[in-house]
Amino acid sequence: MDLTEATWTDVSELETDLAVLPVGSTEQHGPHAPLGTDVLTARAVADAGVERVDREVVRAPAIPVGIAEEHRQFPGTMWVSPETFRRYVRESIESLAYHGFDRVVVVNGHGGNVDALREVGGRLSRDGTAYAVPFTWFEAVGDHSAEMGHGGPLETALVRHCEPDLVREDRIDEAKAGAADGWGEWVSHANLAYDSAEFTENGVVGDPSDGTERRGEELLELAGDALARLLEAVAERNVPRPDDR
Amino acid sequence: MDLTEATWTDVSELETDLAVLPVGSTEQHGPHAPLGTDVLTARAVADAGVERVDREVVRAPAIPVGIAEEHRQFPGTMWVSPETFRRYVRESIESLAYHGFDRVVVVNGHGGNVDALREVGGRLSRDGTAYAVPFTWFEAVGDHSAEMGHGGPLETALVRHCEPDLVREDRIDEAKAGAADGWGEWVSHANLAYDSAEFTENGVVGDPSDGTERRGEELLELAGDALARLLEAVAERNVPRPDDR
Amino acid sequence: MDLTEATWTDVSELETDLAVLPVGSTEQHGPHAPLGTDVLTARAVADAGVERVDREVVRAPAIPVGIAEEHRQFPGTMWVSPETFRRYVRESIESLAYHGFDRVVVVNGHGGNVDALREVGGRLSRDGTAYAVPFTWFEAVGDHSAEMGHGGPLETALVRHCEPDLVREDRIDEAKAGAADGWGEWVSHANLAYDSAEFTENGVVGDPSDGTERRGEELLELAGDALARLLEAVAERNVPRPDDR
Amino acid sequence: MDLTEATWTDVSELETDLAVLPVGSTEQHGPHAPLGTDVLTARAVADAGVERVDREVVRAPAIPVGIAEEHRQFPGTMWVSPETFRRYVRESIESLAYHGFDRVVVVNGHGGNVDALREVGGRLSRDGTAYAVPFTWFEAVGDHSAEMGHGGPLETALVRHCEPDLVREDRIDEAKAGAADGWGEWVSHANLAYDSAEFTENGVVGDPSDGTERRGEELLELAGDALARLLEAVAERNVPRPDDR
Amino acid sequence: MDLTEATWTDVSELETDLAVLPVGSTEQHGPHAPLGTDVLTARAVADAGVERVDREVVRAPAIPVGIAEEHRQFPGTMWVSPETFRRYVRESIESLAYHGFDRVVVVNGHGGNVDALREVGGRLSRDGTAYAVPFTWFEAVGDHSAEMGHGGPLETALVRHCEPDLVREDRIDEAKAGAADGWGEWVSHANLAYDSAEFTENGVVGDPSDGTERRGEELLELAGDALARLLEAVAERNVPRPDDR
Amino acid sequence: MDLTEATWTDVSELETDLAVLPVGSTEQHGPHAPLGTDVLTARAVADAGVERVDREVVRAPAIPVGIAEEHRQFPGTMWVSPETFRRYVRESIESLAYHGFDRVVVVNGHGGNVDALREVGGRLSRDGTAYAVPFTWFEAVGDHSAEMGHGGPLETALVRHCEPDLVREDRIDEAKAGAADGWGEWVSHANLAYDSAEFTENGVVGDPSDGTERRGEELLELAGDALARLLEAVAERNVPRPDDR
Repeated sequence: MDLTEATWTDVSELETDLAVLPVGSTEQHGPHAPLGTDVLTARAVADAGVERVDREVVRAPAIPVGIAEEHRQFPGTMWVSPETFRRYVRESIESLAYHGFDRVVVVNGHGGNVDALREVGGRLSRDGTAYAVPFTWFEAVGDHSAEMGHGGPLETALVRHCEPDLVREDRIDEAKAGAADGWGEWVSHANLAYDSAEFTENGVVGDPSDGTERRGEELLELAGDALARLLEAVAERNVPRPDDR
Repeated sequence: MDLTEATWTDVSELETDLAVLPVGSTEQHGPHAPLGTDVLTARAVADAGVERVDREVVRAPAIPVGIAEEHRQFPGTMWVSPETFRRYVRESIESLAYHGFDRVVVVNGHGGNVDALREVGGRLSRDGTAYAVPFTWFEAVGDHSAEMGHGGPLETALVRHCEPDLVREDRIDEAKAGAADGWGEWVSHANLAYDSAEFTENGVVGDPSDGTERRGEELLELAGDALARLLEAVAERNVPRPDDR
Repeated sequence: MDLTEATWTDVSELETDLAVLPVGSTEQHGPHAPLGTDVLTARAVADAGVERVDREVVRAPAIPVGIAEEHRQFPGTMWVSPETFRRYVRESIESLAYHGFDRVVVVNGHGGNVDALREVGGRLSRDGTAYAVPFTWFEAVGDHSAEMGHGGPLETALVRHCEPDLVREDRIDEAKAGAADGWGEWVSHANLAYDSAEFTENGVVGDPSDGTERRGEELLELAGDALARLLEAVAERNVPRPDDR
Repeated sequence: MDLTEATWTDVSELETDLAVLPVGSTEQHGPHAPLGTDVLTARAVADAGVERVDREVVRAPAIPVGIAEEHRQFPGTMWVSPETFRRYVRESIESLAYHGFDRVVVVNGHGGNVDALREVGGRLSRDGTAYAVPFTWFEAVGDHSAEMGHGGPLETALVRHCEPDLVREDRIDEAKAGAADGWGEWVSHANLAYDSAEFTENGVVGDPSDGTERRGEELLELAGDALARLLEAVAERNVPRPDDR
Repeated sequence: MDLTEATWTDVSELETDLAVLPVGSTEQHGPHAPLGTDVLTARAVADAGVERVDREVVRAPAIPVGIAEEHRQFPGTMWVSPETFRRYVRESIESLAYHGFDRVVVVNGHGGNVDALREVGGRLSRDGTAYAVPFTWFEAVGDHSAEMGHGGPLETALVRHCEPDLVREDRIDEAKAGAADGWGEWVSHANLAYDSAEFTENGVVGDPSDGTERRGEELLELAGDALARLLEAVAERNVPRPDDR
Repeated sequence: MDLTEATWTDVSELETDLAVLPVGSTEQHGPHAPLGTDVLTARAVADAGVERVDREVVRAPAIPVGIAEEHRQFPGTMWVSPETFRRYVRESIESLAYHGFDRVVVVNGHGGNVDALREVGGRLSRDGTAYAVPFTWFEAVGDHSAEMGHGGPLETALVRHCEPDLVREDRIDEAKAGAADGWGEWVSHANLAYDSAEFTENGVVGDPSDGTERRGEELLELAGDALARLLEAVAERNVPRPDDR
């Protein structure tokens, strides 16, 4: 049930403790993909996952601004500090838990949010407020995951599939030309770079021309299936903390 | 230019310092109107205002969860604390200002956000980070404003106009029956109530049957015009702080 | 019972849960009225209200520095940030509640404190720590309220009545000459100004010559009566939060 | 110049950078002395010090609630957390410094505030915002200081001198009977007690009958002289931080 | 130069901007390895790395308590919140940077600290306060890294090499018997567990009997070499942020 | 039992609620004594105290960075803000208390930490989380305490005794020559100085040549005995808060 469209009387009739909270970012995705890519994809995957489970699931509205200061050199990128993001997500989940929706999968579309969501999930789960588990879709699409990049094959494919008008087809070559091969600058497994502008000229990592609409369809299916499995697991999980040794 | 749909290269070509940031709330609006009413209306008004000015305006994505603990007794209502909301809005605006969009009108659809937005605007404007002014649409629709309520004539009308499918027409009578006449319980101009459930049975204040689609159309026009005037004023405003006396 | 003058043994014999906390500001009030106007008036109104109820009421000391950055361009104005003010007031009330004085009316003399006090009252009341309601005297003086201004007819009148020596009678004409007609600069019901120096030359809004001592006497009576009614209502209020719907 | 009574135009004519900020506490002082003892004495000493210097000094209003949780077992005691107190004092001083009054002596009447004021003074002074030095009057009254106690000879004497009506003469014997000899319970120079109720039955430490009005007069003179010397030193101090070694 | 042992006059003669800050955790490492494992190993690796570079490097003292609430079910485990840890590390680095040691490698021995250190490094580096890069030794030991576990082959080996007396050889079998095969409980690439007690009986992950002293020697060499390469890279890095696009 | 060296299984067999937490600072101690003086001495005293009691005591690792901004003008001095230090110490103690070690003596080697530790101890003790009492060794060494200074006779003596190699004997004359006689610059019992560089040329206060190894031995004995007495008192203390009056 989509909270944005439902009334409170609709919600009061639900018999579930399961919810999804899509979380994205409004940030550069190269010259060809929209700034809203991470929100659009998180929302699409959340819907795909919810459709695939035979349970009632509350679907909260997508949070549009995340941890993205690393892209600040590219115009239009929005961000909040990690601490503010953690607070905003945590309290949003607490309000869901207040109504009994206290098993929450946070469906995430942005790499920069991953650490913060894990921290929030741990806090809520250990305190017993809610059992909250983050799910970042591009980590759960099988072999595709290895090619993630940024505004690269995976994200381009999924946007092409979900919101075809938002991919600028005439800029794909340009996007590819200015792209980096990989994320970061690594020495001894430490990333020397903090900002994406340190290693990518136009904000792209990976080859967007490898991101066909067909591939996007497959990604949505894989991610939707993975999310559905996770929703089942979260619904069935024994959540109280283990005994002290 | 809608940031969600634009690319960073599109944004980099803009020659403006003007932005709008829609801000709403996901909260009960009676048995007939959607929980997302305040987001939907803020977004609609923001678009209507932007259309009416002959300037480029950046349109940020709408922030969906606001200060709404006062409605927590009604299922599905989401909220964050005032401090977290202020931080989230302030830092979102700071990120817009980083790119030069440092004259920002926050287009608000929720009464509970008003005080916080004024505080944020003051902080940013006094620090010189951005000149940010909140605009709450239902305060700027002429004589209609006096009938605001909650899920009442104005909001019902505007949702009917913008998203007709989201008003449950078959529950209007029920909505009206359980509605309160006014907001709060007042003694000596102090409101004794902190939660809407203290004075309204079903979350409604005012008569939603007075909110025709026709009226919604008029409200959008009035609010759009008012916002356009404000955008002009904000664009032209002399923003440095006055001299010390 | 005035806490400043009482001993703890006096307080321990009280059988009441009712308290008042005066809250003001030390800030410019034009060339004719003292910086302490908002403290002096809050204190006077608190006393007038307490006198008029047939209950024991604890009277806490007045908090002298509030949210007044908006007047910073005028020498001598003191202020703290909204967050610090909220913390200071909230914790002061919590300490009263610790002793059982957990129905508290905050008697306020400064417009800039209004939003913060409402936020504090909501937090305490929802948490069940104390039922705290702010009362801003100049909102509760009948038709006079419409003429509030700043250092204008109402405040000048009340100071003239309570502390006649503190009004500089020889500067009333000067005060009037440099005064603004209204508070703020408004477009589409949004206030474009954040600092009072943006719209008033000498810090005054309204005509102080309309503030006779006689009027001050009447204001004190009206405000005292209004506060007494509120104290009764707060004492009798059913404070537990309403049931979830 | 007393800020509470002055107008901003009076303040704007001052040619000084020197200010005093009295800081007290509203807390138990035994069955015989008022809860406001620490505010009343801080204010009296501040005035006595200001009188004794041949410089213009801004006198801010007294802050009435301090760090006094240690007395919470005694009804009527008010307190805020150390962090909130530090913020409130620091920002109050920052507002004075904004107007150029950036050499500030904080005149303190309460032992529980001492550590916090030193921390605040260090922060402001190192940041170059203001040079702020706390002065606790009962540490600066020569041999008397050794007999400080709580509601004991010194405070009783000073209140008797400044506000004779506020000492309950008929309870002095009772106060003495229930008093502790010393502050705290010490083992190896560590105080095992955190609350005064751990070691004093009625909140008194020391013998209030040793606190004659005559002694109070002497204390005020000693403290006023000491403060005057400190004001001179603060006015003349070279405040920039020393060079790095 | 070891800061703990150096004098300030020694430090003042250094001509370097390079420092290492070892960071560990005091937490369970099974029945056979000491609670201080992560501190001891971080310190050993830091020293090994510093030895291998031909530059002066300041070596700060090791921070002993980290983010380890995930092990709280095992007695003796200490932890602070992520926010407190971030503050403590960030401000420690800021103090190093104050003296000109503003290229800092944080040598980390604990998985739970990784996300926080990256966040701290980003903040400092973007603000230009210091260029700080975290290095987690067990991520940089070639193929060994895949077998990390917890109190498993790698940590056991390194402690055996550095502090042989601290490994309880007579409990290795017990440690192995109660160990888990892998870290966490995974569904769709999301870890369902937040506490290690959810998946390991005795706190061990991996087989400690695979952690010979010989292997420990090799690990120290690999980690030391990797750290030396990173120190070189950090020393040579062009640290100003890239230009806005 | 030393937590750093123990395993969790060792700790789980303890039957005690008593712990010590050494706390120091890494800061200048003149040209002759190491920056780690306060950590080394806190650790030595903690061990000496624990040895002298016939109880099991948990010994936590020493916290190496404290509140020492006052020495920042001397290279190599590290520090964190008071608030961060308080959080780090408080949460470290909370983690000990989680396992039942909720009577904690904080063994402190640095004057700048004293106020903060008292604040932390009060908070924990009043909340009932842990009964925590700070012990600063140089306050508890009889008549020696009067000669404390900084890098002066006491600290030099104790380091000479515990870590003789770390005292630069060839710089004692230099240390003495640049030393101050006393700590601070006092007027009316207020310290005008915030930084040690305001009153000492080389960071030393007091005469280090008065700090023989023999004296160090005596200091350790005195401090160890004093700590042992305190540990007994803390173990036996009735910790619930006293009744409200």
